[in-house]
Amino acid sequence: MTHWSVPDPEFEARVRDGFARQRLMTTLGASLEHVAPGEVRIAVPFSEAWTQQHGYLHAGIVTTVVDTACGFAAYTLMAPDVGVLTVEFKVNFMNPARGQRFVTVGRVVKAGRTLTVCQGEVHAEDAGKIVPIALMQATMMAVSTKGLP
Amino acid sequence: MTHWSVPDPEFEARVRDGFARQRLMTTLGASLEHVAPGEVRIAVPFSEAWTQQHGYLHAGIVTTVVDTACGFAAYTLMAPDVGVLTVEFKVNFMNPARGQRFVTVGRVVKAGRTLTVCQGEVHAEDAGKIVPIALMQATMMAVSTKGLP
Amino acid sequence: MTHWSVPDPEFEARVRDGFARQRLMTTLGASLEHVAPGEVRIAVPFSEAWTQQHGYLHAGIVTTVVDTACGFAAYTLMAPDVGVLTVEFKVNFMNPARGQRFVTVGRVVKAGRTLTVCQGEVHAEDAGKIVPIALMQATMMAVSTKGLP
Amino acid sequence: MTHWSVPDPEFEARVRDGFARQRLMTTLGASLEHVAPGEVRIAVPFSEAWTQQHGYLHAGIVTTVVDTACGFAAYTLMAPDVGVLTVEFKVNFMNPARGQRFVTVGRVVKAGRTLTVCQGEVHAEDAGKIVPIALMQATMMAVSTKGLP
Repeated sequence: MTHWSVPDPEFEARVRDGFARQRLMTTLGASLEHVAPGEVRIAVPFSEAWTQQHGYLHAGIVTTVVDTACGFAAYTLMAPDVGVLTVEFKVNFMNPARGQRFVTVGRVVKAGRTLTVCQGEVHAEDAGKIVPIALMQATMMAVSTKGLP
Repeated sequence: MTHWSVPDPEFEARVRDGFARQRLMTTLGASLEHVAPGEVRIAVPFSEAWTQQHGYLHAGIVTTVVDTACGFAAYTLMAPDVGVLTVEFKVNFMNPARGQRFVTVGRVVKAGRTLTVCQGEVHAEDAGKIVPIALMQATMMAVSTKGLP
Repeated sequence: MTHWSVPDPEFEARVRDGFARQRLMTTLGASLEHVAPGEVRIAVPFSEAWTQQHGYLHAGIVTTVVDTACGFAAYTLMAPDVGVLTVEFKVNFMNPARGQRFVTVGRVVKAGRTLTVCQGEVHAEDAGKIVPIALMQATMMAVSTKGLP
Repeated sequence: MTHWSVPDPEFEARVRDGFARQRLMTTLGASLEHVAPGEVRIAVPFSEAWTQQHGYLHAGIVTTVVDTACGFAAYTLMAPDVGVLTVEFKVNFMNPARGQRFVTVGRVVKAGRTLTVCQGEVHAEDAGKIVPIALMQATMMAVSTKGLP
């Protein structure tokens, strides 16, 4: 287990505030389940409104939630006066996103001054079984909040 | 310009049917603007419901729409009796997704028997300007529809 | 720890034979250090012949070795009559590849009938310190060896 | 065609100098064929020394050369006092790297102050035919040369 240097002791309040301001998380009914230095867990229930043509959760929605988990995981290790943006990510889809609930975890692998590398995982809870759904590798960036709304 | 071999002359009807069955596209108010062999264009309007913490369209929603465009672009070149699933994708975010409307294009780069490689682009229409937002490189897979709902 | 199903008990001999036939591994002076179901470790010494403009090991050589580790990790879980090819990979570079020796590990995350998802890691041994260099997420494919030389 | 802003008119000399200092390019016998604002082309001949187990050029060597093309393409648009490093890349392999000569092109898609997004392509020249081999999407970073050798 990595012991991260945490520049802002108020990191959890900052993440919870950022999460509350992501309108999409409210729209999806997502819940912020765990915030620790370098690690964030977010869960989302299934809804037919977010499905693709075979009735599974759309890969893009799976990606949305794990991207948010990775972004906030990076954010836990950033200074209080910056914002976080996604530079890029890559996702492999390992099983169809079938289930009642989807749990995503974002973890920091390398925290740099400007760029942070994260890994993300998504599991489905499907009738009592836990099934791996997706794997993310992402680059996040600390940005000055001056230019942001 | 690549001239693709098109195994199913009814490809457009198949894509339009698949698009109509993606509940998420209806939820997002997305419109299928163009279907050609190896190329599909989908547009989506801005909505506050899909925003991240700075008020821009969430990177995951941008990804959702361009993933669908790439998936259906691959699907135009597939045989009539298969379905299409996303194996993996990678997306770079080049500018904040600020604008009134977002246009995504998916294009096939290599169509294989099992796997198809696609590139996707997203542009924002922001107060009359066209701004590049995101770039995708994706792998799609033809799957037997027997096991699918 | 995942317990993989191993379809070919001779997997290690198959990997060692494949490694010996990768001329590039000989060229680089790479050594196959560990072969287990779903996991392969390969090390390579530093050489000025493989450097980029700042005198570090070139990112492409780092990638070469961890790609081989991931490919053979996937191969350990494949049937005896198939070959393995890289469909695609994504690599993040976390620190300059400075050091005397580089150790790469490839691990299977999901083994499918056709496609296998792997993660790879590279560490440098630099004057007694272990420094993380790169992180890979890759898709490997089982292919019939009939068409191969 | 994009018209890039070129902050350093001596960009070509800078790229040619950087290329000459990449020892690996000499080792591989690579040649810098074309340097323009936002675009660089590098070719490399086949050699058995760089092959994988089926006798094709190793995916990692293909990646090495197109990574260098993308890095120098980004470098053409950077200020004279910075260096360029690869943040990350993703590569799809579309056909086996069979041929006598491989031509890689790197192109800038978005040039930012810190980060630059590039696309890269690799084609094989195989007995008079041109075959697409690989497709890259990469993120490059301008770094202060102060800390570099």
